[in-house]
Amino acid sequence: MASPEIEALTSALARLPGFGPRSARRAVLHLLKRRESSLGPLRAALTAVEERLATCGTCGNVDTTDPCAICSDPRRDPRSLCVVEDVSDLWALERGRLFPGRFHVLGGRLSALEGVRPEDLAINSLIARVAGGQVDEVVLAMNATLEGQTTAHYLAERLEKHRVRLTQLAHGLPVGGELDYLDEGTLAQALRARRPVA
Amino acid sequence: MASPEIEALTSALARLPGFGPRSARRAVLHLLKRRESSLGPLRAALTAVEERLATCGTCGNVDTTDPCAICSDPRRDPRSLCVVEDVSDLWALERGRLFPGRFHVLGGRLSALEGVRPEDLAINSLIARVAGGQVDEVVLAMNATLEGQTTAHYLAERLEKHRVRLTQLAHGLPVGGELDYLDEGTLAQALRARRPVA
Ligand SMILES: [Zn+2]
Ligand SMILES: [Zn+2]
Repeated sequence: MASPEIEALTSALARLPGFGPRSARRAVLHLLKRRESSLGPLRAALTAVEERLATCGTCGNVDTTDPCAICSDPRRDPRSLCVVEDVSDLWALERGRLFPGRFHVLGGRLSALEGVRPEDLAINSLIARVAGGQVDEVVLAMNATLEGQTTAHYLAERLEKHRVRLTQLAHGLPVGGELDYLDEGTLAQALRARRPVA
Repeated sequence: MASPEIEALTSALARLPGFGPRSARRAVLHLLKRRESSLGPLRAALTAVEERLATCGTCGNVDTTDPCAICSDPRRDPRSLCVVEDVSDLWALERGRLFPGRFHVLGGRLSALEGVRPEDLAINSLIARVAGGQVDEVVLAMNATLEGQTTAHYLAERLEKHRVRLTQLAHGLPVGGELDYLDEGTLAQALRARRPVA
């Protein structure tokens, strides 16, 4: 029915996470009916981001500047470094403005299955940042998966000879979590990490 | 956290139907990580559509050509005209390729409440198309709402002096149902069982 241009736009939107063919078609219609207020601004925003997109040479975040907004923000404590597997993890922590320091993105996690080795991740650059002596604390914020934890243990070994405080995210019950609905692994972690009642 | 450009892109996406702030952020991250395969193509598709976007002077559809792809398709029967309230209804029918003729988009429905009068809709152009003598059948495919049906009755009165077969979508549409939200099966049934306007 629609022209090749409109079909191409529908396909491009349908490939975004959270969109399928049907919702993409609805979004396209929305855009077509709002050329000035919706289609134009979205096109302009995409163009601006595409033109300036950069991977931060310091931390691995994606942004429109290098160094990124976080690395160049003087209010962010450069002595505290949070190491994450992926940019999406950095963004998840930033959504809640949870961490006042800076980040280091590994670009994945060690995986024997997928053949991901230490040299495939941004580990040497992490060591270099820490060895530079500007860092007091490194938070290992890996995912609570087998591969995430393997990666955290590997990093802990690599970093132990440096004079930094190494911490990791607490494992346990999620906020609002009901015991009856949690998997055994989470329960086991929570029990193992039990602490005195204040 | 993110740069103004990335925030602007997130806001623009968050205003699309089916998206909220959180899913927009996820989509932006997806785009940033796939500059060549995802961000570029989406920006190019939006640009192409924006540059060529046109409202069809014949039927009122939005497309990248005028006349639109439907009006200029020689395989579509020009003697059979399906009148819809809105472009979204046309698209809903086209999703299932349900109607082999052509369309006429009114651009709304009569509404005393919202002050929408006949002269606010593309009714004169509909009468002109029918009076041209090229049309055998007019299908009134209004929504099964009070206002949709009022509009259909009004159009039936205006068209009865012309030599066309007037039909309407079979009732069996759920009360209050809007075409754009119905599944294709229901739409196909309703179209197949269309009957003469009394
Ligand atoms: Zn950075
Ligand atoms: Zn047309």
